[in-house]
Amino acid sequence: MDQRVDNGPQNKFLRNAWYPFAWEEEIGDGPFGRTILSTPIVVFRDAAGALAAIGGRCPHRFAPLRLGKVIEGRLECAYHGLMFDGAGRCVANPHDDIVPKTGVPVYPLQQRYGLIWLWMGEPERADPGLLPSFPSFEDPDFETIHGTIQGEGHYELYSDNIMDLSHAAYLHSGLAAPIFVIGQRRFEQDGDRVWTKISHPNDHVSDFIGAICDVTGRKQDQWVDVRWEPPAAMLLDADLAEPGQPRRTAVPSAHIFSPENETSTFYFWMVGWRRRDIPGFAETMRGGFVHAFENEDKPMILEQSRLMAGEDFWALGPVLLRGDAGGVRARRTLARLIREEQAGTASGVPRNADAEATAAAALSTIGA
Amino acid sequence: MDQRVDNGPQNKFLRNAWYPFAWEEEIGDGPFGRTILSTPIVVFRDAAGALAAIGGRCPHRFAPLRLGKVIEGRLECAYHGLMFDGAGRCVANPHDDIVPKTGVPVYPLQQRYGLIWLWMGEPERADPGLLPSFPSFEDPDFETIHGTIQGEGHYELYSDNIMDLSHAAYLHSGLAAPIFVIGQRRFEQDGDRVWTKISHPNDHVSDFIGAICDVTGRKQDQWVDVRWEPPAAMLLDADLAEPGQPRRTAVPSAHIFSPENETSTFYFWMVGWRRRDIPGFAETMRGGFVHAFENEDKPMILEQSRLMAGEDFWALGPVLLRGDAGGVRARRTLARLIREEQAGTASGVPRNADAEATAAAALSTIGA
Amino acid sequence: MDQRVDNGPQNKFLRNAWYPFAWEEEIGDGPFGRTILSTPIVVFRDAAGALAAIGGRCPHRFAPLRLGKVIEGRLECAYHGLMFDGAGRCVANPHDDIVPKTGVPVYPLQQRYGLIWLWMGEPERADPGLLPSFPSFEDPDFETIHGTIQGEGHYELYSDNIMDLSHAAYLHSGLAAPIFVIGQRRFEQDGDRVWTKISHPNDHVSDFIGAICDVTGRKQDQWVDVRWEPPAAMLLDADLAEPGQPRRTAVPSAHIFSPENETSTFYFWMVGWRRRDIPGFAETMRGGFVHAFENEDKPMILEQSRLMAGEDFWALGPVLLRGDAGGVRARRTLARLIREEQAGTASGVPRNADAEATAAAALSTIGA
Repeated sequence: MDQRVDNGPQNKFLRNAWYPFAWEEEIGDGPFGRTILSTPIVVFRDAAGALAAIGGRCPHRFAPLRLGKVIEGRLECAYHGLMFDGAGRCVANPHDDIVPKTGVPVYPLQQRYGLIWLWMGEPERADPGLLPSFPSFEDPDFETIHGTIQGEGHYELYSDNIMDLSHAAYLHSGLAAPIFVIGQRRFEQDGDRVWTKISHPNDHVSDFIGAICDVTGRKQDQWVDVRWEPPAAMLLDADLAEPGQPRRTAVPSAHIFSPENETSTFYFWMVGWRRRDIPGFAETMRGGFVHAFENEDKPMILEQSRLMAGEDFWALGPVLLRGDAGGVRARRTLARLIREEQAGTASGVPRNADAEATAAAALSTIGA
Repeated sequence: MDQRVDNGPQNKFLRNAWYPFAWEEEIGDGPFGRTILSTPIVVFRDAAGALAAIGGRCPHRFAPLRLGKVIEGRLECAYHGLMFDGAGRCVANPHDDIVPKTGVPVYPLQQRYGLIWLWMGEPERADPGLLPSFPSFEDPDFETIHGTIQGEGHYELYSDNIMDLSHAAYLHSGLAAPIFVIGQRRFEQDGDRVWTKISHPNDHVSDFIGAICDVTGRKQDQWVDVRWEPPAAMLLDADLAEPGQPRRTAVPSAHIFSPENETSTFYFWMVGWRRRDIPGFAETMRGGFVHAFENEDKPMILEQSRLMAGEDFWALGPVLLRGDAGGVRARRTLARLIREEQAGTASGVPRNADAEATAAAALSTIGA
Repeated sequence: MDQRVDNGPQNKFLRNAWYPFAWEEEIGDGPFGRTILSTPIVVFRDAAGALAAIGGRCPHRFAPLRLGKVIEGRLECAYHGLMFDGAGRCVANPHDDIVPKTGVPVYPLQQRYGLIWLWMGEPERADPGLLPSFPSFEDPDFETIHGTIQGEGHYELYSDNIMDLSHAAYLHSGLAAPIFVIGQRRFEQDGDRVWTKISHPNDHVSDFIGAICDVTGRKQDQWVDVRWEPPAAMLLDADLAEPGQPRRTAVPSAHIFSPENETSTFYFWMVGWRRRDIPGFAETMRGGFVHAFENEDKPMILEQSRLMAGEDFWALGPVLLRGDAGGVRARRTLARLIREEQAGTASGVPRNADAEATAAAALSTIGA
């Protein structure tokens, strides 16, 4: 029933984790298919009306189930008509007297923040309590927008991009602000979570943040905290205060990455701000954020990925700056978790001990 | 003279067999080039006016002979002017006093049913008697149409598609009819030929077959026989009868596949029906068949191929239904013939004994 | 400082040599990036106003420096703002107190004939005296044009194309002339330079050469000398004389190839003729040459490359004609130089001894 016939290079991913798969509004009456972790998956609404995620490849002739039809909560393969229920079981065979004892994998599914999250590992370990927490996105005081980008490049390059926001001053002209270059930085780790924290008192904010928070022209005390948790979920809280006043969340955003495969990433993003009820405001803000993600981050990471030419990040001997400490801790944490997960079935020896040593040495050099 | 310098992965193909290469009308005054079995080939009209098929890569500088000129029945290379006759021999060298003792392979060629067939193995074994027989396509009582499609995917996926017509009820809405789902199925094998036979008495036919045979609204006794012969030539006879009356051929079709390479296939098709002499009828019918092949079969096989991600069909452990018995027998027959052919020069041990065992076990399970 | 972290298959190239990188007019105020020898490189104007060539991949996060900004002669990375000087040194880090001791490779650069030439090997061996000599392109009596083409195929296929001009009679209808087929050919070698020389007395020239030299309809004594020097720089002098009169240079041209990688080539060309001061003449001539290079040579070499399917030229067993002697000597010379260069750090044993033996045997057969 739970045969995993998928033949991608999956052992490089952390499997026992929640990954965003799609936004709820992407799911219509029919099946919705997408590949994450090199695994084709299809989501549809089952007989009970609940969303179900099952393997996207029919076990009969390997046809894509995403082309099928949902009939009374069962998914019918578009090629020869085998039907599957929301648990992945084959429940109808129009051709023979017997229904074959077969099926496709089922993936535990949770819905939160408008996102559909899938657990890609052992189903019995799927704990909704492990979903990342983005409280502002459940807080009615915030107006929020969200979207998806698909880009070339390993998902850890996308995580690095958020963990080191110093790039904002160079890559995002609309977001350029002193805090990203001269702000005070701090890096923290608590278990498997890593924080990059920047603070900067009594200075100008970026033009875009000024507009979104209605503080244009007014100096602010500023904080930007980025919280990473494995495999690739980041909360980025940009907080402001009138100088000397108490800090409060101004522009929270979430940046969550699901690998399509080793060289392609789905980027699920959410941005919020304190509700101001200005007509058209959300669409204007959406334009600004989409521009930064699509036209500035995405082409940079694409070229970065191509210049790495398939080599391991550490094997290329990156020169590390102090601002890399957060991203490097996140990379090390994820590498350890993948090693530990694989050690359950295979050996626990890291596959690239030399590169690991390089990383550790580099990190101690930068004092992270 | 018969040096085969081609460097593709040819050892996976059955070489001693006839493969369709092109339709006669595709050959004009100049050379016509195409690659089948990963082998570039060029066809042109030789000095005697006969079609000749020779290797498509000049032995001098590996230029494509398809770009050359036919001059008095000899093919002149477009790069440096070496000339080749219909036997593949280099017969002129404009630059030196001597003509190099060289050439390209020559492929025995037959013309039948408007198709140009090439023998891709040892020339001395090329027997026109081994060409597949499609009698309706030489019968003046039938009006016929034909065409070519190029599609992504291994050619055996295309054969499977024809050997299990149960897909018609799901993939081809215009061809959907009860016979494909509830018809009585039988599988037969006679030497290297395999038949899938379906019969269904006194019921409605598909809308499209109704229109083509002028039986719309009238129940018919129905038969669909598919005959496979290696490597990938299928005759599909759709026969009808007024209930209780003698059966006769209604819509014969041929589906013949030549691998361009391991992941791309040329699909040569012919369809016929009893001549009714209605102006424009053939073009209307052509539209219907081309739609089914191009817009329904081809995208499905493309996605199926991609989901298989280069893996061997058996290695993926397909779940087999009773309707697969014909296709599986065809696969087993072709695998045996390729093994036997290669055993002439190499060892006769199958390269994937495990997968073969899986296939045999699967077939015994479904009683095929 | 001179860490070469590039991870392409560079060991197949001759590194201690000058390669054209770009035309001077391609460099504007910002950085200009291009990949040659599988190595990303960026050229910009340094603080002293001189052109500098440095590695195109930032050592921090592997971002493409070609997307950066030149600020007061220093190149700022577009991703996180590290700055590099014209010697490849990292000279500014906006984020930390310290500038990391890092950098990118610097490539010795020379400007000549309007071209920017880079030395891709050990900087201390970069000798401007080793630049190829094209005297007509510094002679004010000649009007000249130039351009760049990027084409698919190994750069040695492009060299072969020039070293055997017999192709002109077949591939370039506007250049077809008796000299290319029946001219007297001679091959010479002097150290690492190879010449192909053709002469033909008192006959018609090609239409195009007739027009460019104003000798349409007048028979001429003719000479075409091609001089190859490693790695891939060719001077092609087409000389003419009224019958019996002294020979003089009529149409000099240069054909210089820089590998982008193993399967893609940059073709830098220059053509000149004795100045005639006719308005619009140069643009008309440019159209003719670009047509020959882009529409005739480039597609042929592309298909030739694809038909070779990644195999080594010698491993495919080419049939050699007498006209190949120049190209073959050039290939042998380059192979020897690469072997000798690599023997400095690795063993001096050729990697493809069998293919070398084949080449030597073939060459002795054709008497070259």
